[in-house]
Amino acid sequence: MNTPAQVISVPDDPERYAYSFGGGSPVVTVEPGSIVELTTEDCFGGRVRGADDLPSRVCTFPYLNPVTGPIAVAGAEPGDALAVHFVDISPARDWGVSSTFPHFGALTATHTTAMLHPALEERVWVYAIDAKAGTCRFEATRGDFAVDLPLDPMHGTVGVAPAAGERLTSISPGVHGGNMDTPELRAGTTVYFGVNVEGAMLAIGDGHARQGEGEVCGTAVETAMHTVVAVDLVKGGAPAVPRLENDDFLLSTGHARPLEDAFRISQHDLVQWTAELLGLDRLDAYQLVSQAGLAPAANVCDTQYTMVAKLPKRVLGTARAYDGVHERLRALGADHLRQR
Amino acid sequence: MNTPAQVISVPDDPERYAYSFGGGSPVVTVEPGSIVELTTEDCFGGRVRGADDLPSRVCTFPYLNPVTGPIAVAGAEPGDALAVHFVDISPARDWGVSSTFPHFGALTATHTTAMLHPALEERVWVYAIDAKAGTCRFEATRGDFAVDLPLDPMHGTVGVAPAAGERLTSISPGVHGGNMDTPELRAGTTVYFGVNVEGAMLAIGDGHARQGEGEVCGTAVETAMHTVVAVDLVKGGAPAVPRLENDDFLLSTGHARPLEDAFRISQHDLVQWTAELLGLDRLDAYQLVSQAGLAPAANVCDTQYTMVAKLPKRVLGTARAYDGVHERLRALGADHLRQR
Amino acid sequence: MNTPAQVISVPDDPERYAYSFGGGSPVVTVEPGSIVELTTEDCFGGRVRGADDLPSRVCTFPYLNPVTGPIAVAGAEPGDALAVHFVDISPARDWGVSSTFPHFGALTATHTTAMLHPALEERVWVYAIDAKAGTCRFEATRGDFAVDLPLDPMHGTVGVAPAAGERLTSISPGVHGGNMDTPELRAGTTVYFGVNVEGAMLAIGDGHARQGEGEVCGTAVETAMHTVVAVDLVKGGAPAVPRLENDDFLLSTGHARPLEDAFRISQHDLVQWTAELLGLDRLDAYQLVSQAGLAPAANVCDTQYTMVAKLPKRVLGTARAYDGVHERLRALGADHLRQR
Amino acid sequence: MNTPAQVISVPDDPERYAYSFGGGSPVVTVEPGSIVELTTEDCFGGRVRGADDLPSRVCTFPYLNPVTGPIAVAGAEPGDALAVHFVDISPARDWGVSSTFPHFGALTATHTTAMLHPALEERVWVYAIDAKAGTCRFEATRGDFAVDLPLDPMHGTVGVAPAAGERLTSISPGVHGGNMDTPELRAGTTVYFGVNVEGAMLAIGDGHARQGEGEVCGTAVETAMHTVVAVDLVKGGAPAVPRLENDDFLLSTGHARPLEDAFRISQHDLVQWTAELLGLDRLDAYQLVSQAGLAPAANVCDTQYTMVAKLPKRVLGTARAYDGVHERLRALGADHLRQR
Repeated sequence: MNTPAQVISVPDDPERYAYSFGGGSPVVTVEPGSIVELTTEDCFGGRVRGADDLPSRVCTFPYLNPVTGPIAVAGAEPGDALAVHFVDISPARDWGVSSTFPHFGALTATHTTAMLHPALEERVWVYAIDAKAGTCRFEATRGDFAVDLPLDPMHGTVGVAPAAGERLTSISPGVHGGNMDTPELRAGTTVYFGVNVEGAMLAIGDGHARQGEGEVCGTAVETAMHTVVAVDLVKGGAPAVPRLENDDFLLSTGHARPLEDAFRISQHDLVQWTAELLGLDRLDAYQLVSQAGLAPAANVCDTQYTMVAKLPKRVLGTARAYDGVHERLRALGADHLRQR
Repeated sequence: MNTPAQVISVPDDPERYAYSFGGGSPVVTVEPGSIVELTTEDCFGGRVRGADDLPSRVCTFPYLNPVTGPIAVAGAEPGDALAVHFVDISPARDWGVSSTFPHFGALTATHTTAMLHPALEERVWVYAIDAKAGTCRFEATRGDFAVDLPLDPMHGTVGVAPAAGERLTSISPGVHGGNMDTPELRAGTTVYFGVNVEGAMLAIGDGHARQGEGEVCGTAVETAMHTVVAVDLVKGGAPAVPRLENDDFLLSTGHARPLEDAFRISQHDLVQWTAELLGLDRLDAYQLVSQAGLAPAANVCDTQYTMVAKLPKRVLGTARAYDGVHERLRALGADHLRQR
Repeated sequence: MNTPAQVISVPDDPERYAYSFGGGSPVVTVEPGSIVELTTEDCFGGRVRGADDLPSRVCTFPYLNPVTGPIAVAGAEPGDALAVHFVDISPARDWGVSSTFPHFGALTATHTTAMLHPALEERVWVYAIDAKAGTCRFEATRGDFAVDLPLDPMHGTVGVAPAAGERLTSISPGVHGGNMDTPELRAGTTVYFGVNVEGAMLAIGDGHARQGEGEVCGTAVETAMHTVVAVDLVKGGAPAVPRLENDDFLLSTGHARPLEDAFRISQHDLVQWTAELLGLDRLDAYQLVSQAGLAPAANVCDTQYTMVAKLPKRVLGTARAYDGVHERLRALGADHLRQR
Repeated sequence: MNTPAQVISVPDDPERYAYSFGGGSPVVTVEPGSIVELTTEDCFGGRVRGADDLPSRVCTFPYLNPVTGPIAVAGAEPGDALAVHFVDISPARDWGVSSTFPHFGALTATHTTAMLHPALEERVWVYAIDAKAGTCRFEATRGDFAVDLPLDPMHGTVGVAPAAGERLTSISPGVHGGNMDTPELRAGTTVYFGVNVEGAMLAIGDGHARQGEGEVCGTAVETAMHTVVAVDLVKGGAPAVPRLENDDFLLSTGHARPLEDAFRISQHDLVQWTAELLGLDRLDAYQLVSQAGLAPAANVCDTQYTMVAKLPKRVLGTARAYDGVHERLRALGADHLRQR
């Protein structure tokens, strides 16, 4: 039986939502080894509820993508790794929404990929979420095609305060995490961040009932979430970029433009990580990752694009990342869920 | 019982290997609906056989990446789709090789991403292939780490003659196919090309015992292959980019730099394909692909990078791509294998 | 005779240097129409003074690229344009320095264009500045080649507080300006920024005795500067990106990666600006800019790359940007210099 | 008095225009040291003559961008440099045309930067060319704005047969030259190509009465040209990329996507060239080019983007590129013009 240092519920207070990483005072401070329960609002602040709620009309920049936090972790110092294990991510509503948004998305001119085209049509899709059946339902807005897609809840946004005193909007991904928008960030996954400020200042938001790789149109099936995480520290273990781990894979992330740089960052980190865990020469690790690795897109729409590099843990033999913190937090979380 | 129009074996004649797509006379002409058996040499022309056979020493540019073909398909005309179903891909040797190559790969300066660094070390890895066990064995060149990886044979290079009278080396991918280097191109998969010249002029090479997504170091586990394909025509059905289909997924490919353009092309084509198959409005198809799709990298090292966009066929209901040619060719191939 | 609203000297206090745009309290508040005199330290904080002062050794991240400011402009509100005319930029020393820096520059692997190469050698070049002769002297570090280059003083960094409450390090360029590193920012040039916060919060630094286009190796001929600017407001005139104007050209800037997006942003804004000034249809403006415009690189090394789009004012006939504020501030500055 | 080896006029025969680099038999063979006079058709094959001649209607793919040639140069072998000095480029008509073209240009979705937008409007602009006044006249298609722009005749397309037996359409730029679309390629400039096949196989086309940097909308002021070139060989002097030289500058070109790779290639080659000419250490050359160089865009619309890196010859002292071939060919051309 694993006992958490603390079990803490973050009060769900829309007045306390943050819209940036960096700055602001913590909503709560927790000990390493704690379980934290929290609620997150969707990226539209819950304002898009139907076909007529066009985001550009009902949302007000920069009050987009609210995050719950920051949560200070006692004892976290620059150079440490903060480990955040997602114990549970459950939709807080029986519906989610997605939309196109003017000049946002992968298949449209944007303010960055600037062109002379008028914006694509802004349109909202409402998905019925059936948690029991494990589905969310796509319904065409023109014609009557509909299909149930597997529910696969995840958080698009999770991160810590950036380095160098920067304060970045919650819609940006980067080495601090933030709006990474990878479907890999589901329950059962541990994410590792390099700590940049005392307390680390973790914040979480942007729940997705599911998301395709690349988040092509710019939004996923956005919904509010009830989420449980277990947090811990690896003293002195700060990774260069956010890393993820689940029972089957190690995953490194890269956040950059152009997309090949996001790819390079993620692969470079995975090569490095593999070399360290296996005591391999770097070119040997390069070779191994080249043949054994996977490379799915996360987002190709945000201010930085995100690529993921994945290595099956099977090739690691008995080597364990971060001395097994993933396994410990997973056990801690499982016990917590059983007791609820 | 399905009967092929013809069963043809392409003689394995190293003198007849081609090194480009476009130009050259066909090694054989086959009827639509035929089974073709052929052998391919590895991308090094079989010259790299051990740690001392550095590719830059034993290979001579431009005699790299030999392809078997071109195979003319009777009746193929510009505007048609050529469907090539991979019935079987079996390593022709019990070993494969991989290597770094000066100024080639994703994590090195190249002649295109030009920098002032000297080249990374050129090094060769030899993999033992155990077809029965279904493995190929990675062995570190420094230290004694080794691990068996799953055998997953595929072809890096398959394509047709390009449009506009172009003649392109076999190391380039593009809308004509060519060196796409996606691990999705395994047995059980049908690939569709737009035909640009009479006879289509199919050629195949660059077998990989397995390949990671992105082909990070620039080469896979390269080996010679015995391969069986079933070919057919879809009159007037030319896709804009090479498309793949297997029992579970529709896949569109994009070949471009930067990598986000390869992503955009592949997603754009998948949105278009989905809209056509389901009779959906384009924005509805954009939304559906955004939530249901996958987006793995294929290669991030060749003259054009390749991304793949995948949609589970489950979301298509009863809709069938190209009137079911994939299913027909798969059945044809299965019967052929049973009879051997 | 033109009379400034105020003539204000910002005290040169290294303790007050800022290292970010956004946050911090103003060092001074000035009226629109004022002349401001200030001193800036070089990007190394003055710590690199000779061949042995390797930046990675003598500088401490994030205390790089100090800027003088922020300077609040009374009455500046979000939506206004802040016009900053550079009256004079004079080297404050008779020497400047440049250097390579590990994993920074256009022809090296970086943390973003991540590769397995070790860093290029870090090396310092010291330039003798001869203000009277108007030269700065390149001397090779290996061998005895030397050549005088024309002195062409400019500021690499000038900008305002970003939108959305962001706080960005002074090494980043963006829509708020910042580390744009364009040689176009010399005396005689007016730069226009969109105001994001009350007071605009102007800051200036990173003087260059001269800089090539692209800032290829990552640094210019860095030196401290005595600088005079004239500032004014154009109420409600906020441009989408920083714009520049000199006697001969209108210039729009784009800050993004990949470089073609920086190009697109700059050209898109110049097309828009031209259409507005001449009352042209947008496609007509697109055509005119396409034939009459210039497109030099600014930096291809910073966190965002910067491209510049230039249109000769000659094609504008009598049309004047921002109602002639450039001409007025230039006259104001000229009178001020005459009186010194 | 300089005497050319030969003075040869290439007959102007539209039946003999080529549409690719590589393949085809020479229209003429010339000795090194010769003067060649030729005529080129515009990129539309002369078919766009007024506002109603929309290119997508009157032109037929792949019969775009005709080039005059190939011209074989006697004795040219792989590894040599072919030097082509542009003695004179004179518009053959008193009008030129420009246009937008569906899904082509820098500020529009393309087949590569694939998006869901419909194409921008296709429109034609006709320019009056006044050779005597040295102007070409822009006239708006909506409203009555008009302005004379300086005539600045140049060739968008000039190149040799590619390596590796490739055959590339004349609309593609690359290391073989081709559709580089840089305004630097005007009379008075010498361009150097690496020779890939016997005879080099020079071809020239795509005359522009003038062109902005970046060729933003995708086309310049296109017109037919009467052109005189002087050609010579530098045995064994093949550059890695096309290089240019005029009386004031050395210029290296880079052709790639993304645009930063085109930038890197051009700067890398210029650093290399500078190091060789001055006997400098490579990092010293990197530093010198970084401070003294210019970096204008050439095209940001073609299948590869083109950047130019320029170094003032003033910094070279007495060093001369290619042993002074530029100066010799310029003198040869000047004498030829005087004698006409």
